[in-house]
Amino acid sequence: MQKIRETKETEAKERILGLQASVFPGSSRVYAECGAAGRVPLRSIHLSGGEKDVLVYDTSGPYGDPDYQIDIVSGLPKRRGPGPEDSGFSRRAPSGFYAETLRTGQSPAVTAIAEGPDDGSATQLSRARKGVITDEMRFAAKRESLGGDSVTPEFVRSEVASLRAIIPANINHRELEPMVIGRNFFVKVNSNIGSSSIGSSPAEEVEKLIWSLRWGADTVMDLSTGPAIPYTRECIIRNSPVPIGTVPVYEALERAGGIAEKLSWELFREVLIEQCEQGVDYFTIHAGLLLELIPFAAKRVTGIVSRGGSIMAKWMTSHHKENFAYEHFDDICRICSRFDVSLSLGDGLRPGCLADANDRAQFGELEVLGKLASRAAEFGVQVMIEGPGHVPLNKVAENMQKELDLCHEAPFYTLGPVVTDIAPGYDHFVSGIGASMIGMLGCAMLCYVTPKEHLALPEKDDVRQGLIAYKIAAHVADVAKGSKLAMERDDAMGRARFDFRWNDQFNLSIDPYTSRSFYEAGKGGDGCSDSRHFCSMCGPKFCSIRLSREIKEQFESGE
Amino acid sequence: MQKIRETKETEAKERILGLQASVFPGSSRVYAECGAAGRVPLRSIHLSGGEKDVLVYDTSGPYGDPDYQIDIVSGLPKRRGPGPEDSGFSRRAPSGFYAETLRTGQSPAVTAIAEGPDDGSATQLSRARKGVITDEMRFAAKRESLGGDSVTPEFVRSEVASLRAIIPANINHRELEPMVIGRNFFVKVNSNIGSSSIGSSPAEEVEKLIWSLRWGADTVMDLSTGPAIPYTRECIIRNSPVPIGTVPVYEALERAGGIAEKLSWELFREVLIEQCEQGVDYFTIHAGLLLELIPFAAKRVTGIVSRGGSIMAKWMTSHHKENFAYEHFDDICRICSRFDVSLSLGDGLRPGCLADANDRAQFGELEVLGKLASRAAEFGVQVMIEGPGHVPLNKVAENMQKELDLCHEAPFYTLGPVVTDIAPGYDHFVSGIGASMIGMLGCAMLCYVTPKEHLALPEKDDVRQGLIAYKIAAHVADVAKGSKLAMERDDAMGRARFDFRWNDQFNLSIDPYTSRSFYEAGKGGDGCSDSRHFCSMCGPKFCSIRLSREIKEQFESGE
Repeated sequence: MQKIRETKETEAKERILGLQASVFPGSSRVYAECGAAGRVPLRSIHLSGGEKDVLVYDTSGPYGDPDYQIDIVSGLPKRRGPGPEDSGFSRRAPSGFYAETLRTGQSPAVTAIAEGPDDGSATQLSRARKGVITDEMRFAAKRESLGGDSVTPEFVRSEVASLRAIIPANINHRELEPMVIGRNFFVKVNSNIGSSSIGSSPAEEVEKLIWSLRWGADTVMDLSTGPAIPYTRECIIRNSPVPIGTVPVYEALERAGGIAEKLSWELFREVLIEQCEQGVDYFTIHAGLLLELIPFAAKRVTGIVSRGGSIMAKWMTSHHKENFAYEHFDDICRICSRFDVSLSLGDGLRPGCLADANDRAQFGELEVLGKLASRAAEFGVQVMIEGPGHVPLNKVAENMQKELDLCHEAPFYTLGPVVTDIAPGYDHFVSGIGASMIGMLGCAMLCYVTPKEHLALPEKDDVRQGLIAYKIAAHVADVAKGSKLAMERDDAMGRARFDFRWNDQFNLSIDPYTSRSFYEAGKGGDGCSDSRHFCSMCGPKFCSIRLSREIKEQFESGE
Repeated sequence: MQKIRETKETEAKERILGLQASVFPGSSRVYAECGAAGRVPLRSIHLSGGEKDVLVYDTSGPYGDPDYQIDIVSGLPKRRGPGPEDSGFSRRAPSGFYAETLRTGQSPAVTAIAEGPDDGSATQLSRARKGVITDEMRFAAKRESLGGDSVTPEFVRSEVASLRAIIPANINHRELEPMVIGRNFFVKVNSNIGSSSIGSSPAEEVEKLIWSLRWGADTVMDLSTGPAIPYTRECIIRNSPVPIGTVPVYEALERAGGIAEKLSWELFREVLIEQCEQGVDYFTIHAGLLLELIPFAAKRVTGIVSRGGSIMAKWMTSHHKENFAYEHFDDICRICSRFDVSLSLGDGLRPGCLADANDRAQFGELEVLGKLASRAAEFGVQVMIEGPGHVPLNKVAENMQKELDLCHEAPFYTLGPVVTDIAPGYDHFVSGIGASMIGMLGCAMLCYVTPKEHLALPEKDDVRQGLIAYKIAAHVADVAKGSKLAMERDDAMGRARFDFRWNDQFNLSIDPYTSRSFYEAGKGGDGCSDSRHFCSMCGPKFCSIRLSREIKEQFESGE
C-alpha cells in the first residue's frame, strides 16, 4: 500500500505544478497597495464593449500570481512577522511533538516559533479593544473594499472590538494573507479537506488546499484523521495563504489509539499547544456539550452526528464526568491567547436530520456557547459560533436569531444548513439553499458541503462542486444584503447578456469553463453557423434579447 | 440533415423502450383505488429493518408500471371521457389545421374531438362553484393524500372554487391523470421540453417527456419552435399522462414566417382553437403586457427577456397598437372555456437580471394580470399567474406577497427565481435557491431551469439535473410548509442513517443511482473491506453515528 501512496503523492505533486499556469480565463492578478500591511491580491476580469474591469475578491494567494513559482516543499514565503518583540513576543524552539514532526517529516524547516505574552494583550481582539489598528485589520479592510476604501480599517477594528467579527491569524502562520469574518463583511466560505484513515496522502491534501483556494475557499479546515495528522497539517499550513482551522480532538483521539475513553485533558492540551506552535488559526472545540444535555440527544432520531461531539460525549458518558474542554475552558483560552488562535465553538449537538432540528439539545448547547464566547473574550480570544446541520427551511431564521441573541452577535459559522434529508448525492445543493438563506440573514461564514456528504470522502472534483455551490450561496447572500461591490458583477453580466458579449459572460461566470463549454456544445448543434446573436436555446427567430434590442432602438430613435 | 434526424429519431424510440424496465430500485408501483375516478398511481419504497414502506407521489403514469407496454405511435390509453353528453358536450371532427396535422403526420388516429358548451358551465371551475365534485377532483385529492384520505375531494373542490387552485385538464386530453395546482397542495414542478429550429425531433421530445415524468415533472410545457410544432405536440400530448402547457404565440409566429409584425388576432385565434382541439391543458398568454408598460421595460438593463413577451411587444411597437391578447381576452376565455383549457397568465415583463427586479414594468404587468384573472373566472376559466425570473433573494418575498394581493391568491407559477446572474452553467441550482424560498412562501408550481439555461438547448441529462434540483426545491418547500406526508420520507431517511441501512438510504434518495454510486466508489478506497458501519468520509474510528449508537445504548440500558 505504501507503494500506491507514493505514486499518488508524486502524481499529486505534478498536478500541483500544473495548477500554476491556469489563472481564470479573461482575468489577471492585480494588487492593491496597502502600505506596511502588504499588497492585497485581487482578480481583475477584463471585459469588452468599453466596459471597465470587474474586480473580485481573490483567495488564491501566491498561487493566483503567474509570476510565482510553486514549491510545496519550501512552502509559501513568510509575509508576516509575529509582531514587534517589544510588545511581548518571544521566540523559542518548537516543543515536544511539533519538534518531532519537524525532525521526521521532511517538512519545510521551522527552527523557531513565536509566543505572545501571557496576558493575551497581543491578540487582534485585545489590540482592537485598545484602539489599535493592526496591519491585519488594514489588509482585511482593503480586501473587503476590493482595493478601494469603502470599508475602513477603523471599521474592521470596531467590528473586532465589538466581538461581531474575527481575524483568525495565528502569529505563527506567517504565510497568511489576513481576512475578516463577520456579518458586516462579505460572507465567507470554508472548505474541508483532510485525509481519513482509509484514503489520501499529504501531497494530495496540499493539492486539495490549492484547488480549494482556486475555487474561492476563504478558510480551509484540515479534518485529517489517521496516523499522519501532524505532518499533513504542517504541509498544509506552510502552503496556505488562508486561515487553517482544525478539530484538535481528532488528533487527540488518534494519540489515544482511537479509543474515546482514553482521552484526557493532558493529552488534549498537548495537542493544542503543538497546533498553536505550528500555526493553526482556529480550533473547533466542543466545549458546550454538557453532560446534562446528553439525555436530550440520546432521545433523538439520529443522536449526535458531530464527529467531535460524539467523541466528547462518549468520553463523558464513559467516565460520568463533565466535558473536559468545558472544565478547562479557561486553560484553553490562555493557550490560544498566546498565539492568537481563534476559537470556533463547535455545535457538538447539531441536529443530524430535520426531525431533530431546533430541539432542546441543540439550543441548550447554543446557550452554553454564548456564555463561553463571553468568557473567551475576557482572555482576548476571538470567537465564532458553529451552527447546524440539518434544519428545515422554515426553522433556519430561528437559528440565526437565537445565535445573535445568545452569543452576543459573534460570527455564526454554519454547516449548510441541509434543508432536506432525502437527497444524498446532492447535499451541496440542498445545503446551499439553507446557506443562502442563513447568509442573507446574517451568517458570517458557510462551511461547504460536497456532493459526497453522507456517502464518502470527497475527491478533487467534489471539492470544486462544493465550493462552486457555496460561492454561489455566499454571493447570493451578499447581494441580498445589499452589497454594492458584489452586485457590480451581476450588473456587468446583465449588460453582457443584453449586448451578446458571450466571452464576457463566460469570464464573469463563477465557473467560466463550464459556461463556455455548455455554450460551445450547443453551438455545434444542427446547422447553426452563426451563433453570435442568439444561442441554441431559442434559436434566432425566438431570441427575446434580439427583439428587445430592436424595441429599445425604436424607443431611443423616438419612433 | 433529414438522414441525421431520422437516425436520431430511431435511436430515441429505442431509448424510450429501454425506459420501460427501469423502475426506481427498491420501489414498486402501487395503486390507490378511487372509484369511478380510476386508480391513482403511487410509488412505494420498500425498506428493511421492520420499517413500513414509504409512499411517494408518482408522476410517471403508465410508464412507471412494469406491466404497461410502451407504444408511442398509438399513444397512451384514453382513461377519461370528455364528460357526459347530456351536460352539453358535443363531438365533431377536428377542424382545419389540426385535421391537416393528423392527416399528414403519421399521428395516432384521432377521429373526433369534444367541445363543451358555450357558457363555460362544464369547466372544473364552473362545476366547483356549483358544488359539484368531479372525478378529476377526487383523483387529485387521492393523489395529494398519497392514497389516504388526508385531503378530501371537497377540499379540492373548495380550493378550485375559490380560485386558489386549478386542475388543468383539457377535455380532449383523455390520457391525463388529473392533478391539482395550488398552494395548499404539494408544490408542483414543471419541465420544459420542445425542439428549437436548430435541434431535436418529435421522438426525441417524447423521450424527454417520458424522461421528465420519470424524474418527477408534474406538468410539461412543449415550447417547440420551428416547422414541426403541431406534429411534435400531437406526439407529446397523446403520450402524456400529465398536463401539457404551451405558449401559443410561438406557433403563431412560426405561421407568420417568424416575423412578429405579421402576427394577428385571427392567426392567433386559429392556433388557440387547434391547440384546444388537440388537448393542450394550459396556455401561457402574454395578455398583461400593455403598451403603456413598454417604455419602463425599454429603460431596463436587459429589456424584455420573455420570448413571448418580446414577440408581443415587437408587434405592439411596430403597429402602435394595444396587445391583441389583451384586447381579445374575452374571446380567448370563450375559446378556453369550451375545452376547459386553463390560462397561465404570462409575465412578459419579468426581469432578466437582478437590477431589473421588482420594477415598475414588472409590477405594473402583475396588476394587469390580477384583473385578467378575475375576468377569466367570469367565463369559468381556471387561471394561474406566472412569475419571475431574476430576483435577488431579499426581494423574493415581495413578489409572492404582491401576487397574492393583486391576483386574488390565484396559483403562482414561477421560473426560479434566479437569485444571482453570475453562475451560468449552474442556474438550476441558483434558481433552485429562489424556488425553495418562494415555494415555502406559497408558490404553487415551480418551472424548472436546467444547467444549460442562458447557454443552450437542454439535452436529456440537463432535463434530469433540472428536475432533480426542482424536486429538491419543491420538497424543501413542502417540508417547510409543514407537510407531514412529505416529512415522512425525511424521517425514514434519518432512521435509516442511524441504523446504517445503506440500501434504504439509497432507495429513499431523490436520485438512488447517484447516491449509491458515490457510496460504492468511496467503499472501494484503500484497504476498506467492511463498510457496513461507516463510510469513507470518516472511517471507522471517527464515525459519529457508531459512537452515538453506543451512547444511546448506554442510556437505554440505564447505565
